[in-house]
Amino acid sequence: MKQPTCGLLLFPGMTQLDLTGPYEVFSLVPGLKVLLVATDSKPVKTEHGLVLSPDCSFDDCPQLDVLVIPGGVAVNDLLTDDRHLDFVRRQASTASWVTSVCTGALLLGAAGLLVGYRATTHWRSVSFLAEFGAIPVTDERVVVDRNRITAAGVSAGIDFALLVAAKLGGDDVAKRIQLGIEYDPAPLFHSGHPRTAPQDVVAAVEERLRPAIERRKLAVARAAANLKAMAS
Amino acid sequence: MKQPTCGLLLFPGMTQLDLTGPYEVFSLVPGLKVLLVATDSKPVKTEHGLVLSPDCSFDDCPQLDVLVIPGGVAVNDLLTDDRHLDFVRRQASTASWVTSVCTGALLLGAAGLLVGYRATTHWRSVSFLAEFGAIPVTDERVVVDRNRITAAGVSAGIDFALLVAAKLGGDDVAKRIQLGIEYDPAPLFHSGHPRTAPQDVVAAVEERLRPAIERRKLAVARAAANLKAMAS
Repeated sequence: MKQPTCGLLLFPGMTQLDLTGPYEVFSLVPGLKVLLVATDSKPVKTEHGLVLSPDCSFDDCPQLDVLVIPGGVAVNDLLTDDRHLDFVRRQASTASWVTSVCTGALLLGAAGLLVGYRATTHWRSVSFLAEFGAIPVTDERVVVDRNRITAAGVSAGIDFALLVAAKLGGDDVAKRIQLGIEYDPAPLFHSGHPRTAPQDVVAAVEERLRPAIERRKLAVARAAANLKAMAS
Repeated sequence: MKQPTCGLLLFPGMTQLDLTGPYEVFSLVPGLKVLLVATDSKPVKTEHGLVLSPDCSFDDCPQLDVLVIPGGVAVNDLLTDDRHLDFVRRQASTASWVTSVCTGALLLGAAGLLVGYRATTHWRSVSFLAEFGAIPVTDERVVVDRNRITAAGVSAGIDFALLVAAKLGGDDVAKRIQLGIEYDPAPLFHSGHPRTAPQDVVAAVEERLRPAIERRKLAVARAAANLKAMAS
């Protein structure tokens, strides 16, 4: 039997923890090969400067069993980029699991892969999913609908990856990984979601994200128009 | 005022999430400069193959305000390595916060920096801390004792970094970062610590870790003997 392979998309300006959280978990799934995939083989600078290197390019990448699309502010640039859209569609056509962390869901959406699917993403961007024909889910950290698995923002990638590990290897494999990485979270504050965070904290984060969200509105509108044109 | 700087140690074979979890949080602390530091400027391969590049070498590294030592199986090799011990001692002598994630605490211990301090580390290695004169703590995810802050295993680095963010910038800064990275954890299983994980899961993980722990026993004994010889 062919060794199962998980590929995580790497792109400039991405949020590195969207990728590195799941990477740690996937690397501990017995027998799973884990690859970082980018347009070409050059190292990629993530949002805050951390540089990650791809294991393969779009052209070299084998057909993946698990496709993982991380997110970040810079995902906007990918939503109308044919190289990324073609790669994601080509991989999704045969992958067992088509997945995303944080705003990686927007790229799945722009590729037309969430039409009629329940899905989630970072809380600040979840409303955008409807523009791609998805059914936005705001009250689940990881959403499974058939073979699509979408996670909420950034740190949700760890919860997400443990769920995928359970799908791939069974619950005991996931439980062992959880214990190995001592995932026994104890957040200092109740501030991980707008429903629990203090209102002034929500307002401050919304203010910080505002310029990126304004640019995202335009990028999503263009991508959604392209998707509609392709479908008609 | 000088810009505060946080330096995270990078070393071959380390557990990348020990570093990349805190890195994401620290990068969002307004005004904090974040550096990856290694013996020299060459890229470093972490435990499962992910390659990270240092921003500076031990020689180039400025005196840090926050020193962060991540861990991993490969920390054993550092416990008797003078370059690492000297670097950690030199930085700790002026740092505002001397900290570790996971088994990075063993390097702080080997450097003599935990004598008389309450400290924690990955659950499977916490008993080793006593050999370095520390007071092992098994029931706190992040332990603060004066200016030493030590975190439990791997994923505890996120809880740890949010606490450090609060120390550096105030609670509101930490709360905003927590909301930004949507740190609202929802583990699929109760399996993040031996006190909650099923006993057969604990046994399986202990079995997997056994060879590394056997090697660690020897490395810790040698390092503890060196520390005693230095003190006498």
